[in-house]
This record gives sequence, structure tokens and C-alpha cells, in this order.
Amino acid sequence: MTLTPDYDSLTALHQRIHRLEHLLALASWDRASFMPPKGNEARAAALAELATLIHSWQTEPSLRARIERAQRESLSDEQRANLREIHRGWEQANALPVALIERRQIATSRCEHAWRMQRKANDWRGFLSNFLEVVAIAREEAQRLSDHLGVSPYEALMHRFEPGMRCATVDRLFGAVRSWLPPLLAKVLEHQAHKPRAVPSGPFPVAAQRRVCEQAMRLLGFDFEAGRLDVSAHPFCGGTPEDVRMTTRFREDEFLGSLMGTVHETGHGCYEQNLPRHSLGQPIALARSMAIHESQSLSFEMQLGGHPGFARLLSPWLCDAFGHQPAFEPDSLHRLITQVQPGLIRVEADEISYPAHIILRYEIERPLIEGSVEAQDIPALWDLKMDELLGLDTRGNYADGVLQDVHWPEGLFGYFPCYTLGAMYAAQWFATLRRQRPQLDVEIASGQLEPVLVWLRDNIWIQASRWTTEELVLRATGEALNPEYFRQHLATRYLEGPPAGSGE
Amino acid sequence: MTLTPDYDSLTALHQRIHRLEHLLALASWDRASFMPPKGNEARAAALAELATLIHSWQTEPSLRARIERAQRESLSDEQRANLREIHRGWEQANALPVALIERRQIATSRCEHAWRMQRKANDWRGFLSNFLEVVAIAREEAQRLSDHLGVSPYEALMHRFEPGMRCATVDRLFGAVRSWLPPLLAKVLEHQAHKPRAVPSGPFPVAAQRRVCEQAMRLLGFDFEAGRLDVSAHPFCGGTPEDVRMTTRFREDEFLGSLMGTVHETGHGCYEQNLPRHSLGQPIALARSMAIHESQSLSFEMQLGGHPGFARLLSPWLCDAFGHQPAFEPDSLHRLITQVQPGLIRVEADEISYPAHIILRYEIERPLIEGSVEAQDIPALWDLKMDELLGLDTRGNYADGVLQDVHWPEGLFGYFPCYTLGAMYAAQWFATLRRQRPQLDVEIASGQLEPVLVWLRDNIWIQASRWTTEELVLRATGEALNPEYFRQHLATRYLEGPPAGSGE
Repeated sequence: MTLTPDYDSLTALHQRIHRLEHLLALASWDRASFMPPKGNEARAAALAELATLIHSWQTEPSLRARIERAQRESLSDEQRANLREIHRGWEQANALPVALIERRQIATSRCEHAWRMQRKANDWRGFLSNFLEVVAIAREEAQRLSDHLGVSPYEALMHRFEPGMRCATVDRLFGAVRSWLPPLLAKVLEHQAHKPRAVPSGPFPVAAQRRVCEQAMRLLGFDFEAGRLDVSAHPFCGGTPEDVRMTTRFREDEFLGSLMGTVHETGHGCYEQNLPRHSLGQPIALARSMAIHESQSLSFEMQLGGHPGFARLLSPWLCDAFGHQPAFEPDSLHRLITQVQPGLIRVEADEISYPAHIILRYEIERPLIEGSVEAQDIPALWDLKMDELLGLDTRGNYADGVLQDVHWPEGLFGYFPCYTLGAMYAAQWFATLRRQRPQLDVEIASGQLEPVLVWLRDNIWIQASRWTTEELVLRATGEALNPEYFRQHLATRYLEGPPAGSGE
Repeated sequence: MTLTPDYDSLTALHQRIHRLEHLLALASWDRASFMPPKGNEARAAALAELATLIHSWQTEPSLRARIERAQRESLSDEQRANLREIHRGWEQANALPVALIERRQIATSRCEHAWRMQRKANDWRGFLSNFLEVVAIAREEAQRLSDHLGVSPYEALMHRFEPGMRCATVDRLFGAVRSWLPPLLAKVLEHQAHKPRAVPSGPFPVAAQRRVCEQAMRLLGFDFEAGRLDVSAHPFCGGTPEDVRMTTRFREDEFLGSLMGTVHETGHGCYEQNLPRHSLGQPIALARSMAIHESQSLSFEMQLGGHPGFARLLSPWLCDAFGHQPAFEPDSLHRLITQVQPGLIRVEADEISYPAHIILRYEIERPLIEGSVEAQDIPALWDLKMDELLGLDTRGNYADGVLQDVHWPEGLFGYFPCYTLGAMYAAQWFATLRRQRPQLDVEIASGQLEPVLVWLRDNIWIQASRWTTEELVLRATGEALNPEYFRQHLATRYLEGPPAGSGE
């Protein structure tokens, strides 16, 4: 006989949902990696059937009362944190009427499907004809979530990915970046113009590329007994904490994109693999948020991957895989990895230009949801902001402008800020690490990544959703998110040369 | 407003079950092919969760009345056939109490898990200690199914795989084979002793083997847009009709096992890929039975694969893949494929020895279920029958005797007959084909497999479960299953040399 019958009934339900979500995750991964084309229709129907079933469990009418009663039960702090997350998930699942979810599904499917061709055809007008309905639905969704959750409409959308984040905070953080980013970028470009540059010469056989990617994953602590690396058109990290399915893509004429992309996904993968085992299946054991998730992939790709010590580790592997080349010398390789070059495409952007792409999108999608900007206005705003932030002319080039991302056609508003919040968190993790461990850069330069991995594991990975994001950051670093660490990181790396003690 | 509300509610339910079974099939395939070891526990839990859910739908109390009312609705012949299959599935799902299913799950998991090591250790006594419980549960299961379905206990188990098949029929068919098989085998061994034999020389690179396997699959009509070939420890054909997942395994020192195994699985795969699309999701669109399924894999592997024309098709592919060798000459290759050599292991058996392995198992498992034989008696019976049927001494060798198959440790009684019934059906399909198309062997010899594939598609694949097995055979061949075609096939192939007109 338990003293917490309602809490226990809720954890039992989430255990069952976790098991079914395992199958959703597997089937989604397979759809992107191995599924033959004629399997798509049956797969979509199977995924929808199971998703509908899970949603019916999450919206079961008795849940409200069970959660309320559980809140009055005698729970441990950890159980109470789990109940907080259960309640948050319940609010998310119950805030929207099924009819609206179905309308969204239809509108975003149509818009996303047509977008694939419209992007190729630079067809903004065609896109707009479907996108207007997507925006209308997103606004209704935001308003309903806002009413339910007591935050602003855009915040309500953002909370699906970054719970607790306020627009005022994003404004402050991004406002700071906006002020120093354009001048920093100009200085870095000037600084790099004087450095010699060696270009790797291909082809780079795919089998050898895969071996190097797997070496990097092992170095970073990825457990191949509990996960895989496969190939998909768009790299991602999927699967479940018990069985992480990462993907990459290979090109014979270029290896760095695949390698650094794999390093990025490995950050996501290690986070998932190191979520706490004892509470797996409960919301408290889920990764904290998308920005925290991104802070892990960027800790690996940018903080470690862009470190001169990482180039020194990679150098012999690349020589083994592709033969000796001047571009594989540690210094050359590091310059290649940290090369800055503003461009039109977000996913190809370097570490300094990337925040500009995100700030631009935030400054468009927030007023779009709030109604002060209309979808028709986006291209003009895009042109203006690309010029301001990166000095690039995008007029008439919708394909490499507003049509480049899948997020908006899919109705994913409120997600973009996570990328740059993640970069800021990652800089703050490493600033804390260096404070606690002054020899860190020497260790990384000599291939000792263990201190970094142990810190991330103890402070982020095994904490999962035990704390709110604010608490997590405070406990890990002693202060709230502070964009100054990101600025310092960029200035140190890109203007002052390698960190002291890195051995160069 | 429909005139058949109950029938429609049943088809809607089966459509939903079909969608969820898609996910079960995918997750099972992945477990055998790609899943890393540490994913197993979560996978097992996810599969069990979904299987339990599906079972709860299949045993929902209102179903009995809905099926009864649907039987009184105004249905087309095809709908009525579907309802017959719905009713059969409902009977199967509802005949056993959940407690017995759970007991079986625990007992067979324990027995199968321990068997993996016990087989290697030749440990019959250790195996027996778990197996006694498996047999006790199977007997109870058989008795309950028997009471429910009104057939004998062993028949009730067999009907899960081969609906409608009676013991009297199996006795008659296998009795016939038992009478002519040992003398035929002796004659064939004598006949082959005088033929020259060239042995292929390896190694055979896996990538080249895979190419040859895929060539064979394409030749046999497998649609790679709707299926895949991957690798697993034990080859199988899984997935769904819309997305068939075949597996094989490769050895560098031998290629024929993998190639002919792939040809075998392609028979299963093409059957699944060609099930009728318009009723997919309904029981009427499922493959008819396991023996009919096996008749398709054996039509491909034995009837076509053992045809001299098939060796002629393979010959240039093998030379391309592995370089010219005397063993790849069409005559040598055909002799290699049709080489007869009695051995201890069923899955390695040639076309003539194979039925002996099956008859032995049938003659043991049937009285075991009926209670006239006890598990303790199996080794002695095994020794006796291996000597009678194949002239082999198996005393004390449990590993290559009773412990060789996974079926009994898993509680799969009543399945074995399907293999040899399938071989008989396959022989009867080809006898019919030759009667209808006297030029068939010339066509096969010249690489025209289209007439075979069209016949199988029209008579078997797209018929699915439209008819009972007896009706299906009668419609396809004009008579009931007749083992004489199988005897004639073996005698012609193995004693008289290649069929007339084959070009040799």
C-alpha cells in the first residue's frame, strides 16, 4: 500500500508513454535513414496512429484531478520536481483543442511539402499562399497557450522548447550581442585576412571519413554499445537515451562539414546517453531544454572542436585516413575549422556569424506572432537585417533567404533563439570550467578531454530536468546566463590567438 | 450512413491494429539488425507495451457481439471472407487467458535464454529442467485451444501457423514421403558419387557478395523502392507489406549459403510486396499461412534456384564478382547447388534430406503435445529416427540433435510441418505451371522468369487470404495438395538429370 497513490499512478502512466515514445523515435529515425520511399505512406499512418494514442493518454480527463491530488501528497524533493515536469507536460498537451492540432498538421504538411520545390524555384509568392494559413494557426495557438500559461503569446511558443525563458531576457541577451557582433566580425575578418591558409585536397573516401567520425565520437565518450552513427539527408540525433541514433551525411569532395557535424551531434548524443538511469521514463529524466541541449552540441563542436588542441588530436587521424597534406598540420587545420566568412546560409555559418542569423529570425518571428509584422513583410525585413548584421545583399534571393529553413514552413516558431542561447550557455560552461581548473587548456591541448566530460556529466547531463533551467545554470556556474562569456570567448579565440598554455 | 455498421467497425479496428503492428515489425527487425546491445532492455519493454496494447484491443469484450452481428449483415463475398479471417484472429486472440500467456512468456524466455549456452555446452539435462515447464504450458495451451476450436490439441497449435490443416492429412502426406525418401536418398547419393565436382575458392569479399545477392533479388522481382536487404545473425524476412525488411549474413570463405538464403527470403519478400493493396490492413490481405509462405521461398530457392537455368544466370555474375573459376561454370555451379549430403543440421540440409528432419520433429512433437511421449524420451527417439531416416548416428550429440532448433525452447510447437508442406506446395505449383506452359523450362533456362512470377502473383500473392488454404490450392492447381509432385520433382531433378529443353 503506497502513501502516494496519485503520484504513483502518474509515474506509471509516464513509464508507459516512454515505452511507446521509444517506438515513435525509432520509426522516425528509420524514416530519415533507412526507409525505402514506398514505405512512407504506411509509416506516416503508423506514426500518426501511435502519436494520437499517446496524446489521448496525455489528455485523459482524470489527469487534472490526479495531478492536483498528487501535489498534496507527501513527496520527496525529487518527486516534487518530477511532478512539476509532469504538470508542465500536461499543460502543454491539454492547452490546445484537437481540432486546432489537426488544422496545424494539415496546414504545415501542405506548406512544408510545397516548400521543398518552392525553395528550389525561389518562389516566395507560391510559398506565401500556404504560409499565411500556417501563420494564422500559429497565432491562434500562441494566443491559446498564452491564455493557458499566463505568458505572452511568443513566450508561450518558445516555452515548448525553452521553458521559463522570457522575451525580456532574450531581448537583453540578444541586444548585447547585436551591439558588439558587427564590429567584432569586421575586426576578425581583418585579423584573418593576414593569416596563411591551406586548403585540403580531395577526394575523401566515405569509408575513411566514417572511421574518422567514429574516432572523434569515441574520443568524446560516445558509447557505441548504446547508440549508432548512420547516414541521413539532414543530420540529427534521435533515438532514445538507451539507444541513441545519430546521423551525418558524407560528401567525397569535403570532409570537415561531416566531421564537425558529427562532433556537434555527439554533444546531443552524449547528453542523452548520460541522462540519469534510475528515473528514466519520467519527465524529470528528460534533457532540460533545447537551448541546454544545444549548449552540449556547441560545447563539443565549438568550445572543444574549435580549440587548437582539438586540431592537434585530429591531425594524425586525417593523415592516416587521407594521406599527409599541409592542410592537416595542426595550425592549418585549426585555422580551417575557425575560419570566419559571413554567408547567406545559417546552417553553414561560422561561430561568429551564426548569432546574426538567429537574431534576424527572432526579430522577425516574434513580431510576426504578435501581429505587428505580416508574412508579406518578411523579405523586406530580411534584406534590411542581413545588411545591418552581416553586410550582405539578399534582395530577390528568397531561396537563400527566408526560404532556407524548414522551421517556419513546419510552424516551428520560438525555436530559433535556442541555438544562440545554447552558444552562450556553452561559453559560460567553459568559463566556469577554466575558473575551476586553470590547467584546462593545457589538458585539452594534450588530448585530455576527461575533465570537460566529467564536468558536463556532473553539472548538466545527470541533472536532466531535476531543476528549472535558471536553477541549473545557477548551480553549475554560480550566476544566471551572462552573454559576456560568449563575447569574451569569441574575442579570445578569434582576435588574441590560441589561449595561453595551449602549446602553440 | 452505412448498412454494415458492425462490419465497418471491425475493419476500422483492424486498420488501426495494422498501423501499430507496423511499428512492432520495424522494432523487431531493428532489434535483429541494427540495435546496439544496450538498447535491448528498453526495446523489449517497448515491444511488450505495444503488444499488450494490441492484445487488449483484440480481446475487447464487445468484439464477440460485433462479429456475430456483422455475420448477419449484408456483405459481399470478399467482405465475408475478410470477416471469416477476422473471426479466426479473434478466436486465436481470445482462446487463452492472459495469465497463461504471461506464464508462457516467462517460461519460454527463460528456456530460450538458457538454451543459447546449453546448446554450446551439449547440456541436455540443464535444458530439460527448463523445458519441462515449456512443455507443460504448451499442453495446457493446446488443450484450451482444442476446446475452443473443436480440433485436436496438436491441430490447435498447428492452426496458428497453418489454419485448417488436419493431423490425418499430415500423416498421409508425410507417410508417403517417409516411404520413398530413404531409398530415393540412397539412389541419389549413388548417382552423384560419379559426378565430377569443382569447389569454389575464396575469399569472397562481402561487398561483392552483397552485389550478387541484390542482382538475384532484382531478377526475382524484389522492389527495392519498397524494401531492403540488411544483415542479421539469423536471416529472416520481416517488416510490412509496404516496406519489406529482408536480412542475410555473409561469410568471407563461402558465398553460396548467403546467396541461396537470400533467394529463399526473396520468395517471402515478393509474396509480402505483392499482397493486394486495396485491402491492406485487413486480415484478408495477409499472407495465407506459413506453409504457403514457405512454398514461395522454396519456389524461389529450390524450384528456381536449383534449376539448371538459374545456375546459368548466376554464372556470369559470380565471375564478375569473384573472378573466373571452374566452379562457376553453369554445370559445376548447378551440381554444387543441388549437391545432396545428409547431415545432422536441419537448416543446412539439402532439398532431399530436409523433409527427413521435418518428419522426425513432427513424429516427436505431436505425441509430446498429446502426452504419449515425455520430454525425457526425446533424445532416444531422435537417435532412432535419425538412423531410420538418414542413417546417421546422433547418440550423445544433443547440440547437433534436439538442441539445434530455437522452435521448442520458444514453445513453437506445430510449426515444423509447414516447412515440408511448403516444399510440397512449391512442387505442385511448378507441376501446374509446366502443364499450363510446356516451354517453361526452356524459358527459365534462358533467364525468362516472368512467367513464373506472373503465375505466382496471380495465383498466390494477390489472392492473400481470400480463400482457405484448401480452396487456394484447388483454384491454383485443380486438386488438393498431392505429395506425388514433390516426389516426381526430386526424382526428375536428382536422378534423371536436367529437365528436357533446359539446354544442357
